[in-house]
Amino acid sequence: MRVIDTVKEMQETADKLRGEKRIGFVPTMGFLHEGHLALVRKARELADVTVASIFVNPIQFGPTEDLAKYPRDLDRDMKLLEQEKTDILFYPPYDEMYPKGYTTYVQVRGLEDYLCGQTRKGHFVGVATVVAKLFNMVKPHIAVFGQKDYQQLTIIERMVKDLNMDVRIIPYPTVREEGGLAMSSRNTYLSSAERQKALLIYASIKRLQELVKTGETDSLLLKEEARRLLASENGVNIEYVSISDPETLEEVDSVKDRAVYAVAVRIGKTRLIDNAMLGGGVT
Amino acid sequence: MRVIDTVKEMQETADKLRGEKRIGFVPTMGFLHEGHLALVRKARELADVTVASIFVNPIQFGPTEDLAKYPRDLDRDMKLLEQEKTDILFYPPYDEMYPKGYTTYVQVRGLEDYLCGQTRKGHFVGVATVVAKLFNMVKPHIAVFGQKDYQQLTIIERMVKDLNMDVRIIPYPTVREEGGLAMSSRNTYLSSAERQKALLIYASIKRLQELVKTGETDSLLLKEEARRLLASENGVNIEYVSISDPETLEEVDSVKDRAVYAVAVRIGKTRLIDNAMLGGGVT
Repeated sequence: MRVIDTVKEMQETADKLRGEKRIGFVPTMGFLHEGHLALVRKARELADVTVASIFVNPIQFGPTEDLAKYPRDLDRDMKLLEQEKTDILFYPPYDEMYPKGYTTYVQVRGLEDYLCGQTRKGHFVGVATVVAKLFNMVKPHIAVFGQKDYQQLTIIERMVKDLNMDVRIIPYPTVREEGGLAMSSRNTYLSSAERQKALLIYASIKRLQELVKTGETDSLLLKEEARRLLASENGVNIEYVSISDPETLEEVDSVKDRAVYAVAVRIGKTRLIDNAMLGGGVT
Repeated sequence: MRVIDTVKEMQETADKLRGEKRIGFVPTMGFLHEGHLALVRKARELADVTVASIFVNPIQFGPTEDLAKYPRDLDRDMKLLEQEKTDILFYPPYDEMYPKGYTTYVQVRGLEDYLCGQTRKGHFVGVATVVAKLFNMVKPHIAVFGQKDYQQLTIIERMVKDLNMDVRIIPYPTVREEGGLAMSSRNTYLSSAERQKALLIYASIKRLQELVKTGETDSLLLKEEARRLLASENGVNIEYVSISDPETLEEVDSVKDRAVYAVAVRIGKTRLIDNAMLGGGVT
């Protein structure tokens, strides 16, 4: 695996490659788990050259969020990426990403305001901006994003379409641990008792999918059921429970066709999110 | 000259070209004049393939501005571009530029607030956004922008640097009519009496450059002199007179090294802007 750690080398390499090969890209913040590796495998399947990036993007963290203690382990990440036959690890330094005087931001207006955007002000501007930057460096034909971060995926898809970025976004299904907990670098913060409580999130997904399958369409009722389930153990603090339009992310009153159930909770000091499609023949 | 009028064809063409040739780009809103043609010639000089685009970008016009009556003459523009041996005219349709649900904007914070940004709210978000889009379509190695729109040029340069767009911005000196009036598509609105008054703008530039050359550094005094000169005929309404830092566009108290004198006036219904460098050995 080749490691590239300057923007200039990445762009020159990408320019040379792009003429002959299809470039597949998986941007990450490192501390890789099976969820990331599944994205890398998908990129490898769809492209000739696979690039993964590791960059803990400061501008998507709020002032009270966990930037400083965000877990990092570059050696381990590199071994895992080697095992997956990643061709290039792009590991840009902070100074090149956000030099002195930095002031440009990409806003996907409206989509930023819902779900996690309610509490994580500026988060999705930070995400859209860094992804725009990385796309300009790696110049991929395809880029794979996990459905676990559903709002992020929706925003990136909208940005790519609106700004005519010449890259195809490939959504990849959420990878889950045994028991259904969605894989996340932040799971590492959970004690084993907390991890047990976190299983309620997946239980709420299965419950809502089941209710919709048996004919329930009333969003309010479905959300109440989710809240009831999540609150059935102490220490699961609900940040939001939402049933929304898959594209606009606006809350819907009823699950007519397809809708996204999205949820954010805090268990101890750890914030966990998850989501799943309801209706539209989802089983 | 090849005319391309879909985003898809432009991107496929650019992708093919980019491997072998250097692409030079001049984005315009049409109604071309000698100022634009000088940019095209510069692009031809620096690149192998020259692309000019014509698109009157609605999102950079305010609700009370002159979008509907902005002058257009595609046939004439095409003839002029042919004469300059332009290789490709890119003429994207509105529906492909801003489809239903469009919601993504590029903000170059801070730089947008000064000079024209004070009265033209949202203008430079519109400019940065459309240029980002056009760059993603045309994929140029270089793009030529006139110094006449100094704030626009500064914002584009900052955006390109911040978002790591792989394109080099080439600034081109303001092209002037006999008497010194900066070329602009909007000059076509001026009556001959108004055109005469408009010469005061260039007179104020020459006067300030002369004062600085002879040792004057006090911005307040220089700006007063500019205002006095511009007001020496009736019907020249000053919108702003500014002496600012060439990169941050912040007002400076004194012209120590280099500073930009920028001016916007209204003559009748026509808004005219101009600028020039003061100090730093400019003659």
